[in-house]
Amino acid sequence: MNAAKKPLVAALCGGVGGAKLALGLQYATPEAELAVIVNTGDDFEHLGLTICPDLDTVMYTLAGVSDTQRGWGRAGESWAFMDALRALGGDDWFRLGDRDLATHVLRTEALRAGHTLSEITRDLATALAVRARIMPMSDDPVRTVITSDDGDLSFQRYFVKLAAAPRVRRIRFSDADAAAAPGGVLEVLESARLAAVVVCPSNPFLSIDPILGIAGIRERLVQTAAPVTAVSPIVGGAAVKGPTAKIMTELGVPVTNVAIAEHYGDLVDGLVIDRADAAERADIEALGIAVHVTDTLMHTDADKARLAADTLAFAARCRARRHMAAS
Amino acid sequence: MNAAKKPLVAALCGGVGGAKLALGLQYATPEAELAVIVNTGDDFEHLGLTICPDLDTVMYTLAGVSDTQRGWGRAGESWAFMDALRALGGDDWFRLGDRDLATHVLRTEALRAGHTLSEITRDLATALAVRARIMPMSDDPVRTVITSDDGDLSFQRYFVKLAAAPRVRRIRFSDADAAAAPGGVLEVLESARLAAVVVCPSNPFLSIDPILGIAGIRERLVQTAAPVTAVSPIVGGAAVKGPTAKIMTELGVPVTNVAIAEHYGDLVDGLVIDRADAAERADIEALGIAVHVTDTLMHTDADKARLAADTLAFAARCRARRHMAAS
Repeated sequence: MNAAKKPLVAALCGGVGGAKLALGLQYATPEAELAVIVNTGDDFEHLGLTICPDLDTVMYTLAGVSDTQRGWGRAGESWAFMDALRALGGDDWFRLGDRDLATHVLRTEALRAGHTLSEITRDLATALAVRARIMPMSDDPVRTVITSDDGDLSFQRYFVKLAAAPRVRRIRFSDADAAAAPGGVLEVLESARLAAVVVCPSNPFLSIDPILGIAGIRERLVQTAAPVTAVSPIVGGAAVKGPTAKIMTELGVPVTNVAIAEHYGDLVDGLVIDRADAAERADIEALGIAVHVTDTLMHTDADKARLAADTLAFAARCRARRHMAAS
Repeated sequence: MNAAKKPLVAALCGGVGGAKLALGLQYATPEAELAVIVNTGDDFEHLGLTICPDLDTVMYTLAGVSDTQRGWGRAGESWAFMDALRALGGDDWFRLGDRDLATHVLRTEALRAGHTLSEITRDLATALAVRARIMPMSDDPVRTVITSDDGDLSFQRYFVKLAAAPRVRRIRFSDADAAAAPGGVLEVLESARLAAVVVCPSNPFLSIDPILGIAGIRERLVQTAAPVTAVSPIVGGAAVKGPTAKIMTELGVPVTNVAIAEHYGDLVDGLVIDRADAAERADIEALGIAVHVTDTLMHTDADKARLAADTLAFAARCRARRHMAAS
């Protein structure tokens, strides 16, 4: 197929949970072009290095080099650097594997040399032979700040150093107002080839909201002719991964798929929820959002590919429904 | 003994060859304070990191964590970072071990935060429980530039990337005019406690000349009441380590101890040479420089300690001779 005519699928994605579906989408779209637009609000500077946890999780996952047991970082990782760092009195609360470190060192050097995060991410992903295009939501730094009972915390301090223990009062995205979407991201979302936008089952408040907060992205999602479907990160009143449920509770949001649907509102045409939550279907549909009920837990790569294919088929039905409504 | 009354020994030192004698001096001076003033002309920026090969060689050697088989870097080193870096398309001509990398990352971060190289070196050496004080010759960047048949080369490109193959025309020390000696180095060289200054068997042209080129250091060596004795890096017309002999030849300097003595001139009171070169004694003494003939090869730690003790005893004789000449 002519590359210029390939259908295009865009995904919005945070870290581990989202990356699983992104990998499923990579399996499920052999004939399409896949663009994964990734949250960079969790990025931070540590030991003089610029670390982009979500970009790296997506990159390692799509490259097949992630450690699926540990849930983060690279497979077959070693920790000699950390051991030496600790012995030298260095800050060791954020674990950097020897292999992982190569990514951070190269990225930091390239950023200092004036390259954009988009360019660097493309080069790293190319070196790792990732088929999908991995795109940071912005080349400008945006930093997720957790206002907690312990005061304002950068996301990684909250999440890693303090193990997400402090009570969350508010989440904000520092410098988001000044951040622009990279040209490539806007081109994807404006493309006539765009067949579907999939919001991965990442934390809506922590991982997807920063993406939606970048100038131009939300508007293009509202305007696109392509269906926008989200996969809920909530199953049976709990989060599949990470502190999503705890944070929702602390923000006063019920830990339900209905609450996720209300949060995304008219941005999404459809929501994929787990069979365990099938009872929520009617309340979500009452919001004008289509619902697809399936197994959303992704234990194996086959699970990921199936959920991705299911979600894309659901997206095609959402598009058809939209066309019918418009005609 | 009261620390304020301890005798003080200063060493001027480059990399591997010099570091061996510095370790010997650390063994040989249990009752004295040892200050090792180290060449930083070989320092360079690589992958966004500030790398100080001579400082690190001295630090790892004095800490007992150097790889004595390989001759550089840390013992028990691993290379996962390099493997990953290469796979990502990074520049891999300068090998950085996983443990070694912790030093470069911490140093680079601290330099960017505004700490001086002296402070950082002290903290790293303290963390590694090094007894001696390791002091960079300057906190200002000085860079050794090799003018070669291949044009101007930074030292590490010449030495590591090009394996010292290009013919050397000239050696210069970029920014040396603007570089100051750290206060601590000047205090050592001005100290009334200074019992001896030992010029380690490093390459005089590459490793010692940059130190002597820093404002204030040569003057204080000329003025100090302490004897200055050098250990020659030449044995039997060849260099013990590295490209010293090749460079001397290319610079038109005979590969002899006499040439080393002429190069240091009246800066040194005495020169330690190997038994293999005993025949050079008279010609060196004719320059007004005392000579001590001994075994200068340092295979074992016992060799290092013995050569260091020998050199310090020789220095004491040089001091006595000087006092006699003055009286």
